[in-house]
Amino acid sequence: MTINITVWNEFRHEQTNEAVIAVYPAGIHQTIKAFLKKDEQFNVRTATLDQPDHGLTPDVLDSTDVLIWWGHAAHAEVRDDIVEKVCQRIRGGMGLIVLHSGHFSKVFKRITGANCGLKWRDVGEKCRVWNVKPNHPIAAGVDECIELEHEEMYGEPFGIPDPDELVFMSWFKGGEVFRSGCVFNVERGKVFYFQPGHETYPIYHHEGIQKIISNACKYVAPTAEIIDTNVGNWIKVPLEEV
Amino acid sequence: MTINITVWNEFRHEQTNEAVIAVYPAGIHQTIKAFLKKDEQFNVRTATLDQPDHGLTPDVLDSTDVLIWWGHAAHAEVRDDIVEKVCQRIRGGMGLIVLHSGHFSKVFKRITGANCGLKWRDVGEKCRVWNVKPNHPIAAGVDECIELEHEEMYGEPFGIPDPDELVFMSWFKGGEVFRSGCVFNVERGKVFYFQPGHETYPIYHHEGIQKIISNACKYVAPTAEIIDTNVGNWIKVPLEEV
Amino acid sequence: MTINITVWNEFRHEQTNEAVIAVYPAGIHQTIKAFLKKDEQFNVRTATLDQPDHGLTPDVLDSTDVLIWWGHAAHAEVRDDIVEKVCQRIRGGMGLIVLHSGHFSKVFKRITGANCGLKWRDVGEKCRVWNVKPNHPIAAGVDECIELEHEEMYGEPFGIPDPDELVFMSWFKGGEVFRSGCVFNVERGKVFYFQPGHETYPIYHHEGIQKIISNACKYVAPTAEIIDTNVGNWIKVPLEEV
Amino acid sequence: MTINITVWNEFRHEQTNEAVIAVYPAGIHQTIKAFLKKDEQFNVRTATLDQPDHGLTPDVLDSTDVLIWWGHAAHAEVRDDIVEKVCQRIRGGMGLIVLHSGHFSKVFKRITGANCGLKWRDVGEKCRVWNVKPNHPIAAGVDECIELEHEEMYGEPFGIPDPDELVFMSWFKGGEVFRSGCVFNVERGKVFYFQPGHETYPIYHHEGIQKIISNACKYVAPTAEIIDTNVGNWIKVPLEEV
Repeated sequence: MTINITVWNEFRHEQTNEAVIAVYPAGIHQTIKAFLKKDEQFNVRTATLDQPDHGLTPDVLDSTDVLIWWGHAAHAEVRDDIVEKVCQRIRGGMGLIVLHSGHFSKVFKRITGANCGLKWRDVGEKCRVWNVKPNHPIAAGVDECIELEHEEMYGEPFGIPDPDELVFMSWFKGGEVFRSGCVFNVERGKVFYFQPGHETYPIYHHEGIQKIISNACKYVAPTAEIIDTNVGNWIKVPLEEV
Repeated sequence: MTINITVWNEFRHEQTNEAVIAVYPAGIHQTIKAFLKKDEQFNVRTATLDQPDHGLTPDVLDSTDVLIWWGHAAHAEVRDDIVEKVCQRIRGGMGLIVLHSGHFSKVFKRITGANCGLKWRDVGEKCRVWNVKPNHPIAAGVDECIELEHEEMYGEPFGIPDPDELVFMSWFKGGEVFRSGCVFNVERGKVFYFQPGHETYPIYHHEGIQKIISNACKYVAPTAEIIDTNVGNWIKVPLEEV
Repeated sequence: MTINITVWNEFRHEQTNEAVIAVYPAGIHQTIKAFLKKDEQFNVRTATLDQPDHGLTPDVLDSTDVLIWWGHAAHAEVRDDIVEKVCQRIRGGMGLIVLHSGHFSKVFKRITGANCGLKWRDVGEKCRVWNVKPNHPIAAGVDECIELEHEEMYGEPFGIPDPDELVFMSWFKGGEVFRSGCVFNVERGKVFYFQPGHETYPIYHHEGIQKIISNACKYVAPTAEIIDTNVGNWIKVPLEEV
Repeated sequence: MTINITVWNEFRHEQTNEAVIAVYPAGIHQTIKAFLKKDEQFNVRTATLDQPDHGLTPDVLDSTDVLIWWGHAAHAEVRDDIVEKVCQRIRGGMGLIVLHSGHFSKVFKRITGANCGLKWRDVGEKCRVWNVKPNHPIAAGVDECIELEHEEMYGEPFGIPDPDELVFMSWFKGGEVFRSGCVFNVERGKVFYFQPGHETYPIYHHEGIQKIISNACKYVAPTAEIIDTNVGNWIKVPLEEV
C-alpha cells in the first residue's frame, strides 16, 4: 500500500548559510526525499515555508499520509490557520514526524499541548543515539547505537507529555542525556519526535538515521481512513435495546 | 502542606434551569467547595465565567495549586488569553481536574492537543464507575464500583491522547463503556479527567465521587515549585569538563 | 515476509463436552488455524497439551514467530520447563497472543509477573467489545464495536501490570467492564491478551474476532531476529575512547 | 501514617571485601536504615540473606509496607519459596524498591517477568543521574542532575518490560545511557528500580541518592490494605438486576 509522504522544510538556512549549503545544497527536504524515494512503497513530495500556504494547501494535506517537519529559525512565521489544519489532520489519523529543532515548531507544541523546551549547546560534540526498544518497528534493522561524530546537544528536562513509547535515548559527550526518539498517540494520529539533525552536520546523509526515518514513516502511517474528528466524533447516539 | 484549590464553574445552568437549580441551588462550584473544605489540608476558592477575567486573574492563578474545571454550554465564551495562561501554569506544575462536560473546554483541548470528542446520550440511564487501579492514590478508600442511578452516557471512542494512567472505567446500561478516570502528564503538570457530573443529577453530592475528587486534588498537586516552562526551560548550557 | 504461527490449545473440552464439540468439532485450534490460513503471509501449525512436550518441542518453538494460547481447565498440567522455554522465547522477541481463559495460564502469569485474577460469571450474557484505539494496527478494518450475543463475563479488577496499550474494552449486560484487548511489552517480546472466546459460544467463528486475531499476529510478530536475552544481554563491555 | 520498611541486603561483600567494608562497615542495609530513620514516618527494620528465611519470615513480610532489595553475588542462594511469597505480597500492594545489582535478583525478574539483562563495566567512571520527570513525587526536592564521581556503568538495552514511569536516566562518561529510575505497576504493587549503588563507592552516603530512596518509600507504599490477590480476586459473581 502506497504511503504518501510530504517532507516539509523551513528551507531558509540552506539559502543563506554557507556551512549549511555545503551539507544540503538543495535543502534538507531534498536530501530526505531522495533517500525515502528508494522505498517503492513511498510516494514523496516536498513543501517549504515560502511557498503559498507554506506548500500545505488543502489538496496537499488531504492527500498526505505522513508529514515530516523540519524547522528552526522561522517557527513564528508559520501561519496559525495552517498549523490548526495540520493538527486537525493528525488528530484524524495522519502521521507526523518531527525532526530536531522542530521540537519548537507550532505544530509540535500544539499537538502535544506542551512548551517542548530543552537544554542545548552547539559545540559539535559527539552524540550516541541508543536504541532502547530493540523490537520496535522504528528500530528494525538499526544498530543498537548510532554514533554521530558531531551534533548539537539537546538535553533533559525535555518539556513534553510522557511519551507513549520511548525508542531512542541519546548520550552527549558533554554530559547530557535526551529522550531522542519518542512516540505520542493523539487521538487517531501517531507522532514521532526524533532529535538528530542539526543543519550544519551531515546527519541526514547517515544511513542509520535514514533507516530510522524510513521505518518511522511506515509506523506512523494511518491504518484506517483519516477522518475529521472534530466533526465526526461528537455524536449523540440513541438508546437501543441491548 | 496546604493545597490551594480554585473551583471554576461556568455557572450558567444553575441560574436558569430549574432542574439544575433544584440539585445545585448555589452552583456546582459551591457544592464542590463545601465538601473539599472538610479536609483541613485544602484552602478552597471559587471562580466563575461571568466574573472579571472569569475569576482567574493573575493573582488567583499565581496562588492556585489545583484548578478544578466544570463547563458545558459556554466553552466558546472563555477568553483565549486566559486559556493560554491556565495552560502555561499547568505546564509549569499546577494540577488540573476536568469534570464531565469539561472534556470539551478550551483548556482541556489545548492542554491535551486533542479534540476530545465522544459519544453521548442523556436519558438518565444507570452508570457504574469501576475502579481498575485499586492501589492508585486517587482510588484510596473508594469502593471498587460506584453506582450512579442516573447519569448522562459518555461513550468511546474518546478522542484523547493515550492516558498515562487509567484509574476508572464506566459502564452504561445502554451498552457503552468509557475511560472515565484518566491521568495525563504534560511537562510538570498533572491533569485528571473524571467523567461523572451531569448537571441535572446529584452526582457531586455522592460521597464516593467526593472522595475521588478530594483524592485527585492531592494527587495532581505540584510536588515542586511551579515555574514558567516557556521561559525557564529553553536553556543554552555551556560545555563543562566531565 | 512469512510469519510462522503456532496455535496452542488445551484441547480437552472439545473431546468430552457435547456443547463445545457442537461449536468446535475439530478443536478451537483448528478453527483458528482455518481462518488464519486464508492470509498468505501466515504459515500456521497447531500444538496441543496432550502431545509430547505439549507439541512445543524445541524445533517447534525455535521456528515459531507468534504463539497463540488457549487453555482453561488444565493449566496446572502444563510443564514448568516448557513454560520457561516459551517465556524465554517471548523475552527474545517471539509474539504471544493469549485468548480468553488463557489469562490464568502459567505462561501469561509468568511473563506478566502477575496473578491475572478477574471476576467472572457464565450466564451467556450479551458482550460488546469496544475499540478504544481506532488507529491501532490490531483494530485495522474492525468495527468500532463487536457485539457478541452470548459470552462469559470477565470483569475488573483484572490483576495485571498496567498494559502498555489498551485497544479494546468490553461491556457486559450484567453491569461489568473489562480491559479486553491489552498489549504488554516484555523485553523484545510483544504480548496481546484478548478476552473473547468462551468455549461454548461460537466466538472464533465471528469475522470481526477473526480479523482482530489476524491483525494481532502481524502486530506481535518480531521485527528483528529472536535472541536468547538470558545469555546474550548480560554483557561486560570494555571502555573505549569516545 | 507510619510506613513499615524492611531493608534487605545480601550482606556478603561487606564481610569479606576490604574495599566494601571501608565504605559500609556495618553493611549497606545499616547505612540505608540510618538515613531512612531520620524520617519519623518510617519504621525501619533490616533483613539479610544468611538469617533464617533470609530474615523474611511470614511475620516480617506480613508487616512490611515497603521492601528494599540489594543483592549481587548470591542471587542464586535466595530460596524460591521466599521469592514467591515476596512477589505475592507485592502483587497485593506491598511496595518494592530494587537497588543497583538487584536488577538480576530472582524477585525483580519474577515480578517483571523479564530477564533484566544489561551492559556493564566497572572502571569507576563518572555517572550523572538526570531527572526527566521533575514533578514526580520520587524527584521532590532533588536536583535536576546528581553527579557521582565514580560508579559502575549500567547500559542499554535494559531487558525489562516498558516502565510505567521513567523518572531518571543516567549518563556514563564511557558513552552509555541507562533508564536508571523506573516505576512498574504490577497488580496492586508499585516497584521502583534505581540503578546507583555499586558496593565499592559511597553512593548511599550521598544526600541526593538518600532523598530519592526516601521519596520512593513514600511513593511505592500501599494506599489500601494489602491483600492476597491470588485468593481474593478470582471471583465468581452472581448476576444482579442492573
